Amino acid sequence: MPDKASTDFQITTGPIRGSKRVYVGSDTDSSIQVPLREIELHPTANEEPVRVYDTSGPYTDETAEIDIYKGLIRRREAWVEGRGDVERYEGRTIKPEDNGNVEEKYLAPEFPVKLKPLRAKNGANVTQMHYARKGIITPEMEYIAIRENLGRTELHEDMCDRCGDPMGANLPDLITPEFVRKEIAEGRAIIPANINHPEAEPMIIGRNFLVKINANIGNSAVSSSIAEEVDKMVWATRWGGDTVMDLSTGRNIHNTREWIIRNSPVPIGTVPIYQALEKVDGIAEDLTWEVFRDTLIEQAEQGVDYFTIHAGVLLRYVPMTAKRVTGIVSRGGSIMAKWCLAHHKENFLYTHFEDICEIMKKYDVSFSLGDGLRPGSIADANDEAQFGELRTLGELTKIAWKHDVQVMIEGPGHVAMHKIKENMEEQLKHCHEAPFYTLGPLTTDIAPGYDHITSAIGAAMIGWFGTAMLCYVTPKEHLGLPNRDDVKDGVITYKLAAHAADLAKGHPSAQLRDNALSRARFDFRWEDQFNLSLDPDKAREYHDQTLPKEAHKVAHFCSMCGPKFCSMKITQDVRDYAAELEAKEKGMADMSEKFKDEGSEIYQPSTKP
Amino acid sequence: MPDKASTDFQITTGPIRGSKRVYVGSDTDSSIQVPLREIELHPTANEEPVRVYDTSGPYTDETAEIDIYKGLIRRREAWVEGRGDVERYEGRTIKPEDNGNVEEKYLAPEFPVKLKPLRAKNGANVTQMHYARKGIITPEMEYIAIRENLGRTELHEDMCDRCGDPMGANLPDLITPEFVRKEIAEGRAIIPANINHPEAEPMIIGRNFLVKINANIGNSAVSSSIAEEVDKMVWATRWGGDTVMDLSTGRNIHNTREWIIRNSPVPIGTVPIYQALEKVDGIAEDLTWEVFRDTLIEQAEQGVDYFTIHAGVLLRYVPMTAKRVTGIVSRGGSIMAKWCLAHHKENFLYTHFEDICEIMKKYDVSFSLGDGLRPGSIADANDEAQFGELRTLGELTKIAWKHDVQVMIEGPGHVAMHKIKENMEEQLKHCHEAPFYTLGPLTTDIAPGYDHITSAIGAAMIGWFGTAMLCYVTPKEHLGLPNRDDVKDGVITYKLAAHAADLAKGHPSAQLRDNALSRARFDFRWEDQFNLSLDPDKAREYHDQTLPKEAHKVAHFCSMCGPKFCSMKITQDVRDYAAELEAKEKGMADMSEKFKDEGSEIYQPSTKP
Repeated sequence: MPDKASTDFQITTGPIRGSKRVYVGSDTDSSIQVPLREIELHPTANEEPVRVYDTSGPYTDETAEIDIYKGLIRRREAWVEGRGDVERYEGRTIKPEDNGNVEEKYLAPEFPVKLKPLRAKNGANVTQMHYARKGIITPEMEYIAIRENLGRTELHEDMCDRCGDPMGANLPDLITPEFVRKEIAEGRAIIPANINHPEAEPMIIGRNFLVKINANIGNSAVSSSIAEEVDKMVWATRWGGDTVMDLSTGRNIHNTREWIIRNSPVPIGTVPIYQALEKVDGIAEDLTWEVFRDTLIEQAEQGVDYFTIHAGVLLRYVPMTAKRVTGIVSRGGSIMAKWCLAHHKENFLYTHFEDICEIMKKYDVSFSLGDGLRPGSIADANDEAQFGELRTLGELTKIAWKHDVQVMIEGPGHVAMHKIKENMEEQLKHCHEAPFYTLGPLTTDIAPGYDHITSAIGAAMIGWFGTAMLCYVTPKEHLGLPNRDDVKDGVITYKLAAHAADLAKGHPSAQLRDNALSRARFDFRWEDQFNLSLDPDKAREYHDQTLPKEAHKVAHFCSMCGPKFCSMKITQDVRDYAAELEAKEKGMADMSEKFKDEGSEIYQPSTKP
Repeated sequence: MPDKASTDFQITTGPIRGSKRVYVGSDTDSSIQVPLREIELHPTANEEPVRVYDTSGPYTDETAEIDIYKGLIRRREAWVEGRGDVERYEGRTIKPEDNGNVEEKYLAPEFPVKLKPLRAKNGANVTQMHYARKGIITPEMEYIAIRENLGRTELHEDMCDRCGDPMGANLPDLITPEFVRKEIAEGRAIIPANINHPEAEPMIIGRNFLVKINANIGNSAVSSSIAEEVDKMVWATRWGGDTVMDLSTGRNIHNTREWIIRNSPVPIGTVPIYQALEKVDGIAEDLTWEVFRDTLIEQAEQGVDYFTIHAGVLLRYVPMTAKRVTGIVSRGGSIMAKWCLAHHKENFLYTHFEDICEIMKKYDVSFSLGDGLRPGSIADANDEAQFGELRTLGELTKIAWKHDVQVMIEGPGHVAMHKIKENMEEQLKHCHEAPFYTLGPLTTDIAPGYDHITSAIGAAMIGWFGTAMLCYVTPKEHLGLPNRDDVKDGVITYKLAAHAADLAKGHPSAQLRDNALSRARFDFRWEDQFNLSLDPDKAREYHDQTLPKEAHKVAHFCSMCGPKFCSMKITQDVRDYAAELEAKEKGMADMSEKFKDEGSEIYQPSTKP
């Protein structure tokens, strides 16, 4: 048993205020149970409950039993094993270096439950892309179709105003499993779903689906604890993180990651070169293909769903960064640049790219091709180093696709607004519509402490233009490590940016929630307004700072205008007047009709019948 | 003397961390002293101090004596009186209704210093637009030219990358006083500068200048205190508020406003119909032109610099809002809609528009033509009511210009991203390039508690497209009244949005600060990074949460990667390598040249000389 003290978990569970977790089944496969969050409205609203996308896993399900020491239920295992192309095997032995050769007394406890890993049987390929290309609709694909439709089987009346500008995206009224399959087969979307992470709920990342967000967590050389990181993962998914990247860089990387994956309802991404670097004591030039390969297998066996791999940092691009204001700011990018320079050799991630593909397809790990040369300042955006690397990522995409390995492409970074669109256009053009996954971008450098906001501006825009997933930035960016509050601020900020993008694209489901909330606001249904918001706790807290009494929750006024005058109350007068006008005009039209029948032309037809 | 207890001022004074207030003079007029904030960098940077725009007034000047009971020095008075076209007169008598007929015991104290107001001499017109059209460059215009150039008389090397997309704006390398005059004369910009507010430092609002922001303050029927409102005004301008709107709606409106104006270094705007409504006990249908007219004169004599006037809410537009999700959400708009319906008459602000112009030009109050029918939800954006009103505002602009009265146009509101550009285009087209002044817009309705962010996305975009001033939205929007922290969050958020817009437009001064901060970041000059940021206090606080020790302020690493590996340190290797490459190539070229001279072609010319 692990030492309870060092894994003193304080996980937030229970439903988000004003809502409950519900499940929508499939007509054809009873093993498919898609979670949604249902927000019930006040009876006076006379409206159906609003169902929203839910990333929180069983933690918000009151009926679920949560035990961090056991991990989540491995629901997807039956689907994976049912395909008959995987086998359990002994797996790699955990070595001291996997946890950074940490001294015994500092060693974090191992996760208590140990299972042998799965891998593809000899010669098999178990990627969702492989199945898709063979014309197979997997249960994962069917699950995703239901999830993306938010459980609807027909268009809601509020969904019919398809007025967005999709910027080239293809957003059908309803997503079918076949549509999911086709998007995966053609590389426009990915389902990050390692066969060794059956705890995760299937989700999709692609331009023709809801825009997703990623939350980064992870310990570092200056701060760490397994309990904190597991808590951050649960906390990030509670508020809407669609995937979580574990960017740990300190000691105990292996054990920390195991606890996270076993308890994560969302796909987990990593940057394997970080752990590889720890294994060679932080000396970039000591990295070898063998150490890296071993790390990939280690993490694939644990169940990491996507790997950031900086295979596009080519030797010839490195000098292009010399005159930049902020050089190379990607950690992975600089590690590989350092290695290339030290050996004066081509990046081994590039030269071994097909070897990497061979590993990925055995476990269905997706590529997140890293942008090691992304700009770290407004001054460096869209330069030759950045776009050179992007074109190389496009070449690598084609190679990965040859192996039916799923790919997304990472993007910047720091980009002023007028240069954002070019990033999307270049990516679509050179990376063959593989999903784009950007970090912000930050639209100015001058607001440390507020970089969740400087970047939300860029994220919303590039999301509208076609980026499939937005990597969050927290208020601590550039300054320190995010704590729990920062994680939530980052997630909510990116959730709203992604939603703004869905609205602008004209996603059929997006405006439903805006309309429901706006109606609640207009009707002074305060509780409904709080509950429909991305953060019901904060909305209520802010309201109560000015008008704390419970009676005010049903008050037909707010603190802005007070009880004597309210702009919203005037609308009833307006509606009465408009109805009267309409009746009058209709009356005129009727009279006109009547007189015309009788041969008179005293009443001219009104222009508006 | 006022009761000290009820005016217990807690004003924040003293310089913003790491900077000092400096003044740049004019070569031709010693009375012109333009304030800037100078941020000194660490000696190792070997860089000039960075000068940024400063809205904070004497409050950040260590040498200034601040006395809230006396008000700020009336520096502009000499310019106003020097033009010889104004006269002091008795002015209107303050009536009990001006303070909402408040009982004696609740009456807020009067401002202690009383001066007779100024007005234009009989038949004179004292607007900046009037002078501009007569070809006169006022000291205000010269002051503004220096201010917009941030005191520079030539382009800085960092300013030469004019790579922005100005979207039709005309941004010269350096602003001349003549350029300012022409912009004012042609109505593309305004200088809100009531002759009775000589305490304010001249500033300009126009598409061809730096994007400005407004902060709203004001008491309400449920909360109020003069000290709080004066404090919020000083606090909002400390962090970058270019103008402040006093939206008070409760009692004591007159006295509160007087304290604010006498102490405000920035132009003050109001919505006079709010006070007029208080004078008729909150009953909209009891409003009359006479009450409104009296209120305009009352406020013009106090020194309000711009009036929001909802003269575009025409009777025929009102029924167009009946089927909206959120009807009419503008307080002023709904007051006028209610009046129009009650009397079944055209809006008296519209029918008396020329009478209003006659008052405005006597004091140089600028119009902020209110968008009473702005959308209050994503669903209602860009509808016929909104755009109908906008076209009427365009007609009214021409009438105001006939009187040489300055005009800006208010805009929305709630607008999804793909509909934002149309707002700017319609405004430019129908309002003849009069400056646009928008509230956000919010790009989604689902994030109450985070509406400073949902709206910063829209604000940055519409600022880029040409909006001249952005009205802030605080985290409390839709929920409660902003407190001090909310005011700061709103101001900083809008400051960064305005700056992102300046960068995207390619304003010649904008990127200087980004580059200086990025260099500081890259050099690990932590103090410089904090001091160059919009909020040095928060940047430092966040850094210290992870690495609190003073030694870490000079550490060449940060909490993200820790001391063992740092991506930024690798850049030196890259630079050395690039230099080596260049030297080698140059050597090759030299050798090639040498051999060529000697008749050999062994060395082929390198492609990069």
